[in-house]
Amino acid sequence: MDFQLHERLAADTVFITDWPLSRLLLMNDVRFPWLILVPRRVGASEVFDLNPADRAVLQEEIYRVGKGLKAQTGCDKINIGVLGNMVPQLHVHVVARNKGDGAWPGPVWGSGPAIPYELAARDDFLLRVVNGF
Amino acid sequence: MDFQLHERLAADTVFITDWPLSRLLLMNDVRFPWLILVPRRVGASEVFDLNPADRAVLQEEIYRVGKGLKAQTGCDKINIGVLGNMVPQLHVHVVARNKGDGAWPGPVWGSGPAIPYELAARDDFLLRVVNGF
Repeated sequence: MDFQLHERLAADTVFITDWPLSRLLLMNDVRFPWLILVPRRVGASEVFDLNPADRAVLQEEIYRVGKGLKAQTGCDKINIGVLGNMVPQLHVHVVARNKGDGAWPGPVWGSGPAIPYELAARDDFLLRVVNGF
Repeated sequence: MDFQLHERLAADTVFITDWPLSRLLLMNDVRFPWLILVPRRVGASEVFDLNPADRAVLQEEIYRVGKGLKAQTGCDKINIGVLGNMVPQLHVHVVARNKGDGAWPGPVWGSGPAIPYELAARDDFLLRVVNGF
């Protein structure tokens, strides 16, 4: 069976690119610089559903997003989350957080409805931030 | 400088043991089976502050806690979080979540005040759950 992105993730995000293991997505929420990695492994729900080689690659992909987001945004803190209480498909949130952002110091999950990007702002973010990873 | 646990983590948790990289702690909150890994590396705040060897070990320690919690509790989902918006010392939350628990399907962070364990319940949890990792 081919990998297929969960419909909720597809609805909430914008496709950026496929890395060796994971699909890289932008959460369509201008309130937070927020990326999501989805390992392209059918049926994986927990990190421990991945084999050791995939876990090692995922860890490096999380590292790349986290370090890149920090460097490109100059944020105060990177938040990483693997929750999946609503979407069973394994996915990893990597979010740039800043003192005084709309959810600080709480988590972004459950912090209210997303505010979608304007197209120009979205393209600017992708060019300015993600392009530098 | 020797590793020293952040005072907030020390106040909120119970020491379990030291693994090769991380100190394993029990969050003193009977509402959720909730463990915390703190890599014993002075000054580390982000996952990418660790060198590649330490990151690989941390990933395996997270795997061990997650898989162990899932197997021993039969929970619905494992939640993993690296936030650190309030405590700058790098630490990783690994939490067993169940449909209908006090924060479901939201995150445990910011879900209200902890309810400390009774001593007998705490010892039972450590013996029954963590001992099986």
